[in-house]
Amino acid sequence: MRETDFVSGFARGLKVIEAFGEKTPRLAIADVSKATGLDRATARRCLLTLAELGYADYDGKFFSLTPKILRLGHAYLSATPLPQVVQPYLDRLAEEVHQSASASVLDGTEVVYIARASQKRVMSINLMPGSRLPAYCASMGRVLLAALPENEARQLLEKTSLAAFTPRTKTEPNELLEELSKVRQQGFAIIDQELELGLCSIAVPLKNDRGITVAALNIGASAASISADQMAHKFLEPLQAVANALRPLLR
Amino acid sequence: MRETDFVSGFARGLKVIEAFGEKTPRLAIADVSKATGLDRATARRCLLTLAELGYADYDGKFFSLTPKILRLGHAYLSATPLPQVVQPYLDRLAEEVHQSASASVLDGTEVVYIARASQKRVMSINLMPGSRLPAYCASMGRVLLAALPENEARQLLEKTSLAAFTPRTKTEPNELLEELSKVRQQGFAIIDQELELGLCSIAVPLKNDRGITVAALNIGASAASISADQMAHKFLEPLQAVANALRPLLR
Repeated sequence: MRETDFVSGFARGLKVIEAFGEKTPRLAIADVSKATGLDRATARRCLLTLAELGYADYDGKFFSLTPKILRLGHAYLSATPLPQVVQPYLDRLAEEVHQSASASVLDGTEVVYIARASQKRVMSINLMPGSRLPAYCASMGRVLLAALPENEARQLLEKTSLAAFTPRTKTEPNELLEELSKVRQQGFAIIDQELELGLCSIAVPLKNDRGITVAALNIGASAASISADQMAHKFLEPLQAVANALRPLLR
Repeated sequence: MRETDFVSGFARGLKVIEAFGEKTPRLAIADVSKATGLDRATARRCLLTLAELGYADYDGKFFSLTPKILRLGHAYLSATPLPQVVQPYLDRLAEEVHQSASASVLDGTEVVYIARASQKRVMSINLMPGSRLPAYCASMGRVLLAALPENEARQLLEKTSLAAFTPRTKTEPNELLEELSKVRQQGFAIIDQELELGLCSIAVPLKNDRGITVAALNIGASAASISADQMAHKFLEPLQAVANALRPLLR
């Protein structure tokens, strides 16, 4: 790519949008400048442009995003066949097993939810399409990392800050790589309260008609209602049935 | 706003993202140029910038969005208190009435879903946070339009292309304004298969602690299982209970 093909104003603007988040819903120009590394004049121009186009509100001091910004992310969800194809299968699966079922893909070191059918809430956070979790300690993340060549998976783990969310979280790169090799062999991953105490989940790869892993599917359940050991016994078959049914539909 | 405060490259880039959609998941440079009105060189630079930053894939001819683009829309959902506050209430409501429950806000002539708890699927399309429906023929849209000053509602209806999705869709501006005045008086809106045959829904306004309507809540049900007349009898009370419980939490 030639340098002249790069629209810097666009790239900077996208950075500014990403500066807004759960803990930073309202930002002043100085906040955005600090979060993005852009100088204040540039941050200010990007914010004013967002406000002018209706993607942000401005009260004279603070900027906040408006629902119009949802158009940008939703373009992916409505434009990509995968979430559309998977959703009805997840709906039926969740109803059948009385647990939440989800599908996600890998984006860098995180899994991104692309579809979800929720039943009773087990997790403290509300997951929806667009939600992200660190790949190394999520069942779908383990499945997606296991689908990569081992050196790629190792590189991603090296880039990840491996925090212990619970006393059970595996955070040693070598232990995680061993875990991935186990997942590769057995064809599924089980997480026993590594992300949140009280939460277990099981994931399988979703492969396309050429056998390439394009996403992961999972079922999450409360550790109080089912032990991690029982997860495979109870949920592996229905998960694999969905993966098998979807496989010929994914090109 | 001064012209020099506007980052045109950013504004053009956002237009390019919005060119992708359900019917246009893969776009060549010429397609984007046509959809956005930008010249081909500009469309090309914006697309290459998206690809360079990982927001788009490029196969040499067609561009498609990647899950990274979800970060942009998700910034709103995770950064805005409303969806976070409303979601657990919708979850409980949906479970209680065994129907899908949603919350939305107005964006121009459309309602945008900001939270949803889905039960059995009634609608043919899959609704999720970020999904949009035309306001004039959706129950939450009627409630949100009714909350506007009448001349503003009239102006929005004038800007809307009033299509008949079913033989029951109301498309006459004056009939719609009368409907809005009825909704204003009774405090709720019922849609009887105007958006899709087989689908009924009922919506109420969600007001903040100062009495200002900040969103709408609804319950959708299959017309085969319940008539429009019974909707209020069955669902109005639980909907209003949620709106009342949320009111003091919304500042």
